[in-house]
Formats: sequence, structure tokens, C-alpha cells
Amino acid sequence: MDPQSAAARHVAIIAGHLNCPSPSAAAPLALAACLHYDPPELSEKPPAFDLAALRRVLDGHDLAARDWLFRLMEESPLFCPRGSGDRTFVVPDYNQTKEQQRAVTMRRIEYLLHRGVFEGWVTGSGPEAELRKLAFFECIAIYDHSLSIKLGVTYFLWGGAIRFFGTKRHHDKWLKATEDYQVKGCFAMTELGHGTQKYWIGGAANDATHTIIFSQLLINGISQGIHAFVAQIRDADGNVRPNVRIADCGHKTGLNGVDNGRIWFDNLRVPREDLLNSVADVLPDGQYVSSIKDKDKRFAAFMAPLTFGRVNIAATAVYISKVALAIAVRYGLTRRAFSISANGPEVPLLDYPSHQWRLLPLIAKTCAMSSAANYLKRLYVKRTPETNKSIHIYSSSLKATLTWHNMRTLQECRKACGGQGLKTENRIGILIGEYDVQSTFEGDNNVLMQQVSKALLAEYLAAEKMKSPFEGLGLEHMNDPCPIIPADLTSCTLRSIKFQLDLLCLRERDLLGRYASEVSQYQAHGESKKMAVLLSHQLADELARAFTERTILQIFADDEMIQSAGPLKELLGLLRSMYALICVEEDASFLRYGYLSLESAAAARKEVMKLCGELRPDALSVVSSFGIPDAFLSPIAFDWIQANSWASLSNE
Amino acid sequence: MDPQSAAARHVAIIAGHLNCPSPSAAAPLALAACLHYDPPELSEKPPAFDLAALRRVLDGHDLAARDWLFRLMEESPLFCPRGSGDRTFVVPDYNQTKEQQRAVTMRRIEYLLHRGVFEGWVTGSGPEAELRKLAFFECIAIYDHSLSIKLGVTYFLWGGAIRFFGTKRHHDKWLKATEDYQVKGCFAMTELGHGTQKYWIGGAANDATHTIIFSQLLINGISQGIHAFVAQIRDADGNVRPNVRIADCGHKTGLNGVDNGRIWFDNLRVPREDLLNSVADVLPDGQYVSSIKDKDKRFAAFMAPLTFGRVNIAATAVYISKVALAIAVRYGLTRRAFSISANGPEVPLLDYPSHQWRLLPLIAKTCAMSSAANYLKRLYVKRTPETNKSIHIYSSSLKATLTWHNMRTLQECRKACGGQGLKTENRIGILIGEYDVQSTFEGDNNVLMQQVSKALLAEYLAAEKMKSPFEGLGLEHMNDPCPIIPADLTSCTLRSIKFQLDLLCLRERDLLGRYASEVSQYQAHGESKKMAVLLSHQLADELARAFTERTILQIFADDEMIQSAGPLKELLGLLRSMYALICVEEDASFLRYGYLSLESAAAARKEVMKLCGELRPDALSVVSSFGIPDAFLSPIAFDWIQANSWASLSNE
Repeated sequence: MDPQSAAARHVAIIAGHLNCPSPSAAAPLALAACLHYDPPELSEKPPAFDLAALRRVLDGHDLAARDWLFRLMEESPLFCPRGSGDRTFVVPDYNQTKEQQRAVTMRRIEYLLHRGVFEGWVTGSGPEAELRKLAFFECIAIYDHSLSIKLGVTYFLWGGAIRFFGTKRHHDKWLKATEDYQVKGCFAMTELGHGTQKYWIGGAANDATHTIIFSQLLINGISQGIHAFVAQIRDADGNVRPNVRIADCGHKTGLNGVDNGRIWFDNLRVPREDLLNSVADVLPDGQYVSSIKDKDKRFAAFMAPLTFGRVNIAATAVYISKVALAIAVRYGLTRRAFSISANGPEVPLLDYPSHQWRLLPLIAKTCAMSSAANYLKRLYVKRTPETNKSIHIYSSSLKATLTWHNMRTLQECRKACGGQGLKTENRIGILIGEYDVQSTFEGDNNVLMQQVSKALLAEYLAAEKMKSPFEGLGLEHMNDPCPIIPADLTSCTLRSIKFQLDLLCLRERDLLGRYASEVSQYQAHGESKKMAVLLSHQLADELARAFTERTILQIFADDEMIQSAGPLKELLGLLRSMYALICVEEDASFLRYGYLSLESAAAARKEVMKLCGELRPDALSVVSSFGIPDAFLSPIAFDWIQANSWASLSNE
Repeated sequence: MDPQSAAARHVAIIAGHLNCPSPSAAAPLALAACLHYDPPELSEKPPAFDLAALRRVLDGHDLAARDWLFRLMEESPLFCPRGSGDRTFVVPDYNQTKEQQRAVTMRRIEYLLHRGVFEGWVTGSGPEAELRKLAFFECIAIYDHSLSIKLGVTYFLWGGAIRFFGTKRHHDKWLKATEDYQVKGCFAMTELGHGTQKYWIGGAANDATHTIIFSQLLINGISQGIHAFVAQIRDADGNVRPNVRIADCGHKTGLNGVDNGRIWFDNLRVPREDLLNSVADVLPDGQYVSSIKDKDKRFAAFMAPLTFGRVNIAATAVYISKVALAIAVRYGLTRRAFSISANGPEVPLLDYPSHQWRLLPLIAKTCAMSSAANYLKRLYVKRTPETNKSIHIYSSSLKATLTWHNMRTLQECRKACGGQGLKTENRIGILIGEYDVQSTFEGDNNVLMQQVSKALLAEYLAAEKMKSPFEGLGLEHMNDPCPIIPADLTSCTLRSIKFQLDLLCLRERDLLGRYASEVSQYQAHGESKKMAVLLSHQLADELARAFTERTILQIFADDEMIQSAGPLKELLGLLRSMYALICVEEDASFLRYGYLSLESAAAARKEVMKLCGELRPDALSVVSSFGIPDAFLSPIAFDWIQANSWASLSNE
């Protein structure tokens, strides 16, 4: 097979396509025999399991509420319903200036407001209400990231600050008004390279009426540290108030529906009563009082409610991955290319082993990460002072891991759809630009993962020093003897939960020990603790990944375990094995540190390939269980031949 | 160090920043001591080598012509010069609808046309002229991908087709008119899922006057295969001509300055003379004549000139990486975060080991890939029938590898700039959306790499069958005894060209053998050759990567070798070692197949870390040698504090 003859065969196949129309004067526009659309629901085998049951596992909560909100969006012309073939899709018009995108975002908010979507978002409380809010955020984010961020700033950053940092006088003044979107608050914390100018303040450039300001509190020239104040920045007519200057942060790669601004405050006077005084106050006589003595701890108290952001980002990221996978899988079942046997029929993309290898592991990861996101949400809404540390660590590791996974999934799905993935109406490409920001906002992912490893190191050193067992964060396995990995890995072993958990625990245990040892070696060579940690960044990355993947596997396995025996449980088992083994395949540390022999690693790879073949028939069913309504997918997920026909142009 | 106290320290540092302004009524707007800009040229050591000499190596050709074109773009208001602080940047206004972006793209083309940029692009010939065109394409692409693609379609796809497939009558009619942009041609080859409709045709939706059509030629009902025809699709007033229907392909993730369209041809009559007849013709009496007897080979002849596209894409991709790296490195030298020692000064991002690890290997890869792109360009412009196979394989492997590298570099640099990387004025984020298409157009990267491996397999089988030595494609090393990798890798060994080439050759040799063996095993188990190849996709990917990286290393080492001893050669040596060792670090196959022991792999990783430290002082000098004019970088590459100040708003 010399390349010329291979090229010639390739050419022959292309020529075959061009030949297909079999042009005749009588029917010049007849569709080619080689270009036809079979709905995958007809060409694929019927679901082997209950789709609704899988959706309950993956969504975890508030399925009916999600569907209600999806329908609300589908019903309104503000959400740009767009005919395509015989279907309608709701998709923002991104062929607009940022000014237009901002305006329509505001109108969408007003619409959702009047339909009661935000009821209780500021004044409500309790785990059920919080879970429902989180579910709504996931749904809104599927439509448009700007819409979700614009709401998040006002309802959760501003509203949360008033609620948690403020007291009755602030609550009375602002909570209800915020829930009714009369007061539009923003949150002035970030600064330009941590300078004097409040920077990237979402909502500031055009619409916000009020803001939280984080600023030093000086009493008689003595700093009491950072406190949160409230200031009105625009009057009722939308004019910027005196002593405030605001400039637009400009056009961005995504999120152009959010009016990020820079704010300068010049000798702005804030009344004493507008200091948010839940943890510290200034009495009318000017005396400073605080329930928290330590300045830094006071500031940390102000940061705590921000955790909501990370939980929300993690949960949203995995939902966006589902949109992309549902589109790419459906397209991969209907877009055919070349034949495998000589003169055989053309083969759907998803029947190619390499295409399966690209998409099916991402489906398994997305399912596993759904479970993890649900776990994190439940932990968060039931938070107590005792769970703060776990929430901090899990939200950091899952925010980073799930957003990385989402970007990778979007990129892979975009490429799996070829040029069609770049058409804005097909959503995947545009989601890349819209969601890229998730990997650096609310904590840069790399920094978050380094923090996770530092926290694990602290656990390790504490356990060593106190000679006490590990407790919490799933680290109890560190108290057991080191797991033994069998030398000869059968398919059966490779798919057992015990083996998979043992292997991932082994990696985590060893990496934690190595990390501790490398840091201490650097210290022994005279480096400061801080520098030693910075120099050990690779092991820190490897450890944080090991911790996160082991955590996700454990949570996903728990969700599998509680199912009763049957096809759904079997499917979850396949997905769990795929998750575990693709983690092994993709992390060189299993080879680098000898957790697996070369033969065992080869066996794991072969098993992934087998799992691709076994999961392939369920691909459509699994993405159908993601619960994304058809209208939120895209033309290439359905009859894209009809959608691109001349006849359908009148709908556009 | 429990996480709470770690968090508290982190909080203390943030609080320190917020504390910095030391607000006093007298000078409320004074810049904070912790937020100041030092030009990296002042804070960094002077260049250790001749910057212009490195630029000559990396650019390879036409430096003065590039600078001339850069200045042309800088001079024109059409290129949107934008004041920022005391600087001016040229950057397209992406806050525009696709209609506006298309209109301004046309005006930019007219401007460049009248300045003589396209002189000889269609009527000229010879290697020098072709290299100059390629250089111009790289420069134009740095400004805006749409501008470059719009030109590429008319000048190279349409113009090239007229030139190579047409004869004197076509040349006389269209070549000069094309060069003068009087005739605006497009190229109707791609189809929707290979159907009846010509799809994604750049230029078709709004502006093209003519098109090449690839279509079956039937003579008396007998198909002679695909031929290229010319048709006028719009009249002089821009109206679509009879028997042609055109629709817009719609908004895209990038490239909105290009008017991609779908064309339907309904019983369109093309005069006999407008068949492009360089390889086949129809005589006035209706008789079909061709110099190439085989139908598929005739079609293959039509495909050959398309290779220009892949060469151009590869060369452009590496130039775009340079823009991103120059911005990210300059920002990383001026953006500070936290201190390493207690109460020490804040540290520039690029002094963090993890930040070095993110960016410096990408710099080395970009330099090595510059050499490879130059090699490919020279091979292409001096092409002969004998080099066709090499050009096909090198252009496939380098197109895929350099565009993947570019996307990765853009993504890493965007994140290294945090939120600033997402501001459109800072370019990196928007380049992601604009250049993503490179990984799937002109051949999907994954498919191209599989083709490379199939071609290597053909070489292998031919050599085995004929008992003849390998010749060409750098595969001669396969004729030598298998290289021996020393067990104990000193720093000196790790940095030697011989060791690096040996190791990369060893990997390629072994993977080629494994791939051949896996394919033949599948065949032995009854799979067809085609299916066997599809099932071996992992080894094919690993092999194609091994081939490409070995090729790049060899070319880069050759560029180093011809330098005379001195600081530039030393720098190139460091970059080459970084390139070779990061390839080792990033490809698990060295461990998976045992090319390196665990100890040796650990030594290679340690050496990469050392190289990061050694290359760090040269980072600014290297990116300065990339030759990207300041105006094509962005505000964060210079005094971004001033650029974001209130005072600079009047310039925006």
C-alpha cells in the first residue's frame, strides 16, 4: 500500500461521492443516494434501560423544575426561537454587538423575573430552595452564559453579601428589592493586578444601581482590615453618581451580554449604617467593635459565601458538557464517511473505533462528574461549620477538574463535528468561547489544584505528627495497608470496583508520600517551605488529580451501588469501569511511578477499547438521558440535510 | 499547615493588596506601591545574543518584506489603530456583526491591492516569489484570519486552479483580472456531508463573481470522472446569475469576515471552453481526450495544488503562536502576584517555576516548529515530481502538529494572562476562536496523522518485501542498528544531539514495527486491511507523532549546526534540548513501551526543570526575536496599568 495508491483510493471514494447525484436533466435536485438522514432513534437499538431513571441519577434533583424553566425559555420570542427544517431551536443571536447582547440579556431577565423564576432566590432559605436555585442556574447556563453570570452577580454575589454580611437594617432595605430586581447590585472586589481600581465588575458598566465595595476600614488612622460597604453608584435615572467614575472593560471573547466595568471611587462618602456589620461594626460614637478579633479571619469570613460560585461553576460545567456530547453523538450517528469494506455502505462516524475512543470516555467522565457535582451540591446546601474544610477542598478540586473536562469535551466535540461544529447555530463552538472563562475565574484552576495538594499535605503532616489516623476527605484508605495490585489483570479484575478503587487509592497514597518527601527534601536543602512547595508543583498537580479522580470514582460507584440489579445498574457499571480505566490510560503517573507494569497498562488500554465497543450501542440512550430538550441542541443533532436545504431557508 | 491557616495566610496577602493604597484624603488616586509597571526591557538582563540573528533563523526568509507589510497595515485607519496609554495597536473590531466584518475585510483587501501587496501573486512564479507570498500570508494572518482566508480563496484556490488546471485561453481571460481583484473567484468543491449542495464556499455568500466547480463530466451518458469547470455566478452588478442559488452559511465561531455560502446549481450551462482542460478536454466534435487515462488519477491531479493550503496553514499557525507567547511572556514579566519570602516583594508570574513550566517549553517548541515550517516551505516551493510524496507527508504531519501546538499555546497563554487574556483587545482569546478551524479544515488533523502512519507503514512493508533499505522521509536511521540508550543519563548526555535523536529514532522505529505487527495480527484474525488499520488507530497516532517530532528535532538541530559558535548557538542548543526533552516528558509512550527506564524518565523531567531555569533569563529576548511589531501585540504586553487608567480612556 504505497501512499500514492492509498491517496488514489481515497480520491476514488471522494469521486464516488461527487458521482452520487447521478445528475439527470429530469431531477437535478434529487438528493443523492449517499446523502440521506436516518433519525438515530430509528437506526439505533431501543434503550436497554429506563432513560428517565438514568436522568434521575445524573440530574440528582429538581427534574420537573428544570423542565418547567426550559419550557419558559422555549416559549418566549426573547430567547430567539429559530426555525430550522421542521424544528425550532432557541439560541442567542451572537451576531450582535456587545451593546445589543447586553440589552437583550436585561430583557430576558425581566421576562424570567415576571414568570417567577427568581422567587425566593434572596429571601428564601433551606437546602431544598438552594438546590432548586442551583438547578435553575444549570438550565439558564445552557441557554447563555451571560444570562447566568449577570444573574449570579446580582442575586448571589450582591444578594448573598447583603444577606450574610449585613444585618436587619440592610436586609429590610435591600433583600426584597433585589429579589424583585428593583435594586441591581454588583460586587466590587477584584482589582486590576490588585491595584486601586475595581476591575472586571460584572454589571458595573451599564446597569448596576448599587455595589458592595471591599475596602480597608480606618478608624482614627488605624486599619481594621477589609470590610464590606454598600454604595449606590447610579441614581434612579441610571446616571452615575458623584464621586464615582465607571468605564467599560470592553469586548471579550465571550460573555458579551455581561457589562463588566472598572470603577474608580474618589472620596466617596458611605454612611456609617451602610457598613455591612454582621461581624464588625462602628458605633455611633466612632468606636469599632467586632465579634472576630483577628483581622485576617474577619476577611476570611467575608470570603466564605463565595464558595457558592465554585459549586455553581462545577455543576454548570458538567451540564454544558452534556449539551456538546448530545449534539456530537447524534451527529456522529447520522454523518457517514467512507466505507470500511470494498463498495460497502458508508459508515456513521461513531462506528469508527477512533471516533468512539474520542467521545465515549468523555460520556463516562461526564456521567461520573454529574454524580460528583450532585455530591458537592448536597454537601454545600447542608453545610455546617464542620464541613467547611471539605467544601473548600472539594469545591476547589471539582471546580477545576469539571471545568477542564468541559473545555476538553467542547473542543473534542467541536472537532468531531468538523466545520459544522464552528457554526454558531450548532452551539458547540460558541460554547468554547463562552465557557473558557470558567477555568480562570473564581480561582485559577491551577492555583486551586495546588491548594488542594497543600491541604492534603497538611493532613499528611498532621497525621504523621500526631500519629493519628486520617479522617475525612475520603483519606481513610491511608490508614489501611497499602493495596496490592494483582500482576495478572483479567477483564473481570479490571472491571471490579475494588480493583479500580485500590489502584486509584494506591496512586493517591504514593503521590501524597512523594509530595511530602519532595517538599521536605527541598526544605532540607535550605529552601523555605513556600519555595519548597512552589518547586514541587508537578507532584502537587499529580496528587491533586489523583485525589480528585479517586473522589469522583468513589461517589459514582456509590450512586451505582444503591441501584437495584438490572440494566441501569449494568450500564452504570460499564460507565464506571470506563471512567476508572480512562483515568489510568490518560495519566502517565501509573507508569512513571510503577503503579502498573507495562503489561497491566496495556491490558487497561485494551479494556478501554472493549468498553468503547460495549458502550457504543448505548451512546444514544445515555445522551438522551441527559435531559437536554431538543430545542436546546442544534440543527446538526437532527435532520441537518433538511435544515440546510433551500426549502428551509424561509424559516431562518 | 492546615488549610484554614493556609487560607488565612492567603487572605492576609490579599488583604495586604487591598491595604496597599494607603488611602489618604490628600492623594486618594495615587497608584498603590504594589501596583507599578516596570518595562521588562529595564528589569530583565540585556540580550545575550543577537536578536536580529535569531529572527533570521526563525523567520527564514523575507524579513524586510514582512516589515514593509506590517507597516502598511499599521499606517491605515482601515486596520483600526487603537490608542491605549501612549501606544497604538492595530486590531480588528470584533464587536461587529458578520456583515460589518465582511465589509471591512473587502476594504482592507482593496487597500492592500492598491499598495501592490498582491503583485505577482497569480502571474508571478518561481521559489522566491512563492516564499514571499507565504511570508505575506503569515503577516496578514497575524492581523486577522478572515483577511487571510478571503485572500487565500481567491488568489490561491481560484487563481491556482485557473493556472494549474486551465490553459492559455483561461489564463488570458482570468489570471491578470484575478491578480487585480477584478474577478473574485471562489472554489466550489466541498459539499454538505458530501451531498449535492456545494457547502462552506468561502466568498460565495456575498462577493464572488466566479467559481471553480468540481463536477462529474458525462459524455454521451458516460462519466469521465471529476473535472473542474468555471462558472460566473454573479453579474457585474453583484446579482446572482440565473440557474444559480446561493445562501449564507451563517454566523461562525470565528472567520466572520469571510462570507461562506452554499450554492445550488440548477441546470447551469457551462460553455465547452470553460472546462479547465490542462489534463483533459472535450473537442468541438464532442470527443473526450485526456493525457491521463485513469479517472482517479485525473482527479488526484486536480487535488495536488491544494497542498499549498497545508503548507500555508502550518507556517501561519506557528506565527500565531508567536503572537500569543510574546504577549504572555511580557505580561508574565510585569504582572506580579504574592511574595515567596515572608514580607518580600511580589514576584513576577514568570518567576514561578510552574509558570515557567507552562510557557518556556512552548517557546522552545515554537522555535523548533519555525525551523520545520521553513523547511516545509522550501521543499514546497522547489517541488518536483520526485518530492511530491515527501511534501504530501510532511505537509500533513506538520499541518496537524503545528496547528495543534498553536491551539494549545493560545489556550495556555490565554490562561497565563487570566481574565485579561479574554479581553478582545488583548488578542489571545479571540485568536482561539479564529484559529480553531485550522485543526479541521484542509484535512482533519486526526485523519491527516492517520494518513502519515499509513504512508510509513507502506514504506515499512515495501522495505520488508523488497529487502531494500529505507530511503527518504528521514527514515534512513531504520537501516542502522537499533540505537542504544545509556542507562545512566547525565545532564550532559540528556543535552546531546546524538542522545536526543537516538531516543526519538528509537521510538519511531519501534512504533513503526509495532504498528505493522498489530495491523498484520488483526489481518491474521480475519479483519480486512482497512479494518485492521482502523482498529490500530492508537499506534497509528503514536507513530505519526513520533515521526513528526523526530523530523522537527532533526531540522531544528540542522539549523543550530550551521551557526558558528557563540551565544546564539548556545541558545539554540538550550531550545533544542528543551524541545527534545519536553517531547519525552509529554509522551507516555517512552514509558509505555520501555524506551526509557523510570529513572531515566525522571532524569529527563528534572532536566526540563533545569532548562526552565536556564531559559528564563532569555525569555524576553527570544520572544522579541519573533519579529512581531509592538502594534500587533496588545495592551497587556506593555504598560497595562496606564492603558487601563482613566486618563487613557479618551484614546479609546
